[in-house]
Amino acid sequence: MSSSDKVLNIGIAGLGTVGGGVLKTLNKLSEQIEKRAGRRIVVNAVSARNKDKAISSGLLNQASVNAPKWYDNALDIASDKDIDVVVELIGGADGVAKQLCETAISNKKHVVTANKALIAHHGYLLAQHAEKQEVCLSFEAAVAGGIPVIKTLKEGLAGNNILSVAGILNGTCNYILTQMERSRRDFADVLKEAQDIGYAEADPSFDIDGIDTAHKLAILASLAFGRQVDIQSVYVEGIRQISLQDIDFAASLNYRIKLLGVARMVDSKISQAVHAVMVPEKSPLAAVYDAFNAVEISAEPVGNIILEGRGAGEGPTASAVIADIVDIARGSYIKPFGISATHLLDKNPANFSDVKNAFYLRLTVLDKPGVVAEVSSIMRDSMISIESLIQRSRKPNEPVALVMTTHTTSESAMKSALDKIEKLENVIEKPAMIRILDL
Amino acid sequence: MSSSDKVLNIGIAGLGTVGGGVLKTLNKLSEQIEKRAGRRIVVNAVSARNKDKAISSGLLNQASVNAPKWYDNALDIASDKDIDVVVELIGGADGVAKQLCETAISNKKHVVTANKALIAHHGYLLAQHAEKQEVCLSFEAAVAGGIPVIKTLKEGLAGNNILSVAGILNGTCNYILTQMERSRRDFADVLKEAQDIGYAEADPSFDIDGIDTAHKLAILASLAFGRQVDIQSVYVEGIRQISLQDIDFAASLNYRIKLLGVARMVDSKISQAVHAVMVPEKSPLAAVYDAFNAVEISAEPVGNIILEGRGAGEGPTASAVIADIVDIARGSYIKPFGISATHLLDKNPANFSDVKNAFYLRLTVLDKPGVVAEVSSIMRDSMISIESLIQRSRKPNEPVALVMTTHTTSESAMKSALDKIEKLENVIEKPAMIRILDL
Repeated sequence: MSSSDKVLNIGIAGLGTVGGGVLKTLNKLSEQIEKRAGRRIVVNAVSARNKDKAISSGLLNQASVNAPKWYDNALDIASDKDIDVVVELIGGADGVAKQLCETAISNKKHVVTANKALIAHHGYLLAQHAEKQEVCLSFEAAVAGGIPVIKTLKEGLAGNNILSVAGILNGTCNYILTQMERSRRDFADVLKEAQDIGYAEADPSFDIDGIDTAHKLAILASLAFGRQVDIQSVYVEGIRQISLQDIDFAASLNYRIKLLGVARMVDSKISQAVHAVMVPEKSPLAAVYDAFNAVEISAEPVGNIILEGRGAGEGPTASAVIADIVDIARGSYIKPFGISATHLLDKNPANFSDVKNAFYLRLTVLDKPGVVAEVSSIMRDSMISIESLIQRSRKPNEPVALVMTTHTTSESAMKSALDKIEKLENVIEKPAMIRILDL
Repeated sequence: MSSSDKVLNIGIAGLGTVGGGVLKTLNKLSEQIEKRAGRRIVVNAVSARNKDKAISSGLLNQASVNAPKWYDNALDIASDKDIDVVVELIGGADGVAKQLCETAISNKKHVVTANKALIAHHGYLLAQHAEKQEVCLSFEAAVAGGIPVIKTLKEGLAGNNILSVAGILNGTCNYILTQMERSRRDFADVLKEAQDIGYAEADPSFDIDGIDTAHKLAILASLAFGRQVDIQSVYVEGIRQISLQDIDFAASLNYRIKLLGVARMVDSKISQAVHAVMVPEKSPLAAVYDAFNAVEISAEPVGNIILEGRGAGEGPTASAVIADIVDIARGSYIKPFGISATHLLDKNPANFSDVKNAFYLRLTVLDKPGVVAEVSSIMRDSMISIESLIQRSRKPNEPVALVMTTHTTSESAMKSALDKIEKLENVIEKPAMIRILDL
């Protein structure tokens, strides 16, 4: 608490949506934030790619007496003697962002970052470095925007054994799935609209192929299970293959389809998987719509905790960045992953083929006698027990949809069954398969 | 961080459900908790009303080398030189609980408590005392059990201006309303069942008349708006008057009925109200069932954050108590109400009659010409605009239910209209009125 009457000087690298939001909010709420932090927080230096843009957007008023120093090179912030906290909002797993954080830590400056790729890939080494230098490395904004899920795992649930973490962590995917469900349009159509209104990038693969969710899940899993971040072991599927037909069948089975990141213990190994999931329509995650994020944590003794809010954008992300800064201003010093990085256990990934789920299968079959018998004998031979079976024709004389749900079985059993089913002469399209949440 | 290698010695006063849960969890998860806290947490002393019961229940094994000291008088824990943290789990706004906390603070010991009545009534003075003595006063377990809502308001949303807090804060009420809705039984019937299975007390008034919710709401409002706790100004209604008819009409209007505590700013004054509310069935609070709690916080810039979990019972409450203890072990020192008690603004309660809501009204009327005209002209004279109107007879020749929803209007306007409506000759029962959430 020795420094609590001193001003906390921060330097912000990156003045995009998030950096701009942080600056604006620190300004607008300066009085409230000073009362909470117990000291004044001053933006002492900034850096961004385009100085003219920073000036024209009103973020940088150099005529003001309180104008922050401008650095053309972000790395100079990390060497500025006046700066206590470096706020890294540049992005990217490597390059300048990584160099900036490393230099700041070397120079005994605290680091606050919103960079999920950086923490997913280098969080373990950066945490070791930060602990050695006795500075904070904080990244609340890296996962689920304004939802304080990292604080909840590190602090709020510190008296729990975490069993699983399941989250809707990508707003773009949740928006697309919501729109498909509500407006009954197919994936390509809704994606195009999302791109037009700026909810999806021109190259959407980072979001819709599940990579963004994987980064966030790896961070949450590390925090939840006290293990080194293991982005390489995350099993990843996206949502390109989800059809309107599957959304309709899901509804008729009382499920909704969400892209989830799910981390859980499987025989004392860690399973991390990102894929579409059918969640029961009465479950809290099913009711999370549009670009909202939500995380459900199952733990002992607390039971299930659900946190929901906006997962991206200027306001939510700025909220998370400022919370980290206020923690530092208050003198809180909690290790980046909640426990000392030297105590983080080795990666111990479960083999994804051993992970068990219930499954939904949709086959497109020719309406001939014996098809159901063929399929069900393959399932029996793979030791998979069928829970329900619906056969529905689209129109007379057209191929028939054969929909099944199974009891819990392993990925490997399901894969072997699917390989055989796909080869059946009467199965005329690639089968659709969606896992059913069974935590 | 000077004390981080030292053992943290705690003394627990009260070994009921919560105290027992804290002891058991500290034991069971000692290794994980030590890694997170960065030091060992040892229960050094305990006290409870009944020593024999503590022994027979297995909570106190005096033969063990690590057995905590036993004190017949809880107050002795506050004077034990070996104790760093006093955990008060006795309960009650005054008496031993208050004296224990005061003595502990005077003796420069940190205090962790689950006592909502104590904090709602004396939190402001206790916080001043704790700050003067430079010790923590932590009460996460006092509101919404295992949901880290106090940490979220104090820390996770430290960069926000809080606009409103609305919570389902009493599991008993939410259980009763859920059961009424699901099993279509009336209040008295479901209450009796809840009492039989231990979900409601023999004297249920503390829960079902909204007093418990009021305590919790006053604490949340103080944290949200940076003001002195003001339990006296909370407007309180319970759920005894909610009928199955109202639940059915709510459903047909796409609402669900919940007992909410709602705190919000009304013309820079603080409105705190506990009463049944119709919430839109698509809203997150509508999907919170049974004994679950949930809090929706609306704030700038983060938007809306929803936290949900179990709000009471051994596990959830123990989780919250231990989180507070781990924070202390980690050396975090955040003022009890997030800002210094000396900076907490004066109570500035809104007049409840100025608070605005939309309303649902159900009148039981004789089916005679002109009733609707009488009622609607009273509404017009009170400047209340009707949004929808349904007239439905229960059976032929029986009185008719006349159901209205209004646009937003003040409590005073609604009260004056209701006073007049009640006196109409054709209105033969006391009108039912439920507010509609409009945050």
